[in-house]
Amino acid sequence: MHQSIQQHIIALEIAALERWNNGDPDGYLALSSLDVIYIDPFFEQKLEGFKALKEYYERIRGKIHVDHYELLNPTVQLMKDRAVLTFKHCSYCGEKVYKWNCTDVYQLNLQWQIIHTPWSLIENR
Amino acid sequence: MHQSIQQHIIALEIAALERWNNGDPDGYLALSSLDVIYIDPFFEQKLEGFKALKEYYERIRGKIHVDHYELLNPTVQLMKDRAVLTFKHCSYCGEKVYKWNCTDVYQLNLQWQIIHTPWSLIENR
Repeated sequence: MHQSIQQHIIALEIAALERWNNGDPDGYLALSSLDVIYIDPFFEQKLEGFKALKEYYERIRGKIHVDHYELLNPTVQLMKDRAVLTFKHCSYCGEKVYKWNCTDVYQLNLQWQIIHTPWSLIENR
Repeated sequence: MHQSIQQHIIALEIAALERWNNGDPDGYLALSSLDVIYIDPFFEQKLEGFKALKEYYERIRGKIHVDHYELLNPTVQLMKDRAVLTFKHCSYCGEKVYKWNCTDVYQLNLQWQIIHTPWSLIENR
């Protein structure tokens, strides 16, 4: 039972991520809850709520193009109707590779939704 | 009821963070679950489990000294026995200021424990 929910969560993420990496935020928008909190290294303040997230995603729609990506070493910590997914995401754009630590906290409402999404860059040192 | 749990979570975090900022990881160790997952920008891979976290914390025990800090704009997303705390953490060390996005996912076992802790640096741009 737990195994299949974990696989389901990872499949949801991969489907959204593949669209994201082609400039299409609609996969993540469809997964995001009304009270979603979004965090990334380029915002001084978190984005709170679906409306703020959608406004941001609309601004960058079509601007992200990843040649290929790797979703590495995913872990799902599952407890009842919450699941914490984390994975390493490497996106390759021409000569550049961007390495991210990604966490998405999912909650089962009518469907599994992302309520908290802190993504961060891995520092090269 | 929810309000007081949220205040309780924030108080737990502040108590651990104040010790952390004086080189003492024991506050966070006391809060961490056996299956805790730790993520920061300087690790290529997440740390999985209390034992791995404790080994890391012991290596840096006594090495962190923050002159003063700010815990800004905390949010707690609470649902039953899970709570997602996020806040901005500015630590001032001499002339330097380090700005972090901090998320700690708490779970109520016998007590509230941290099961997932992705911290990340805010990029200055």
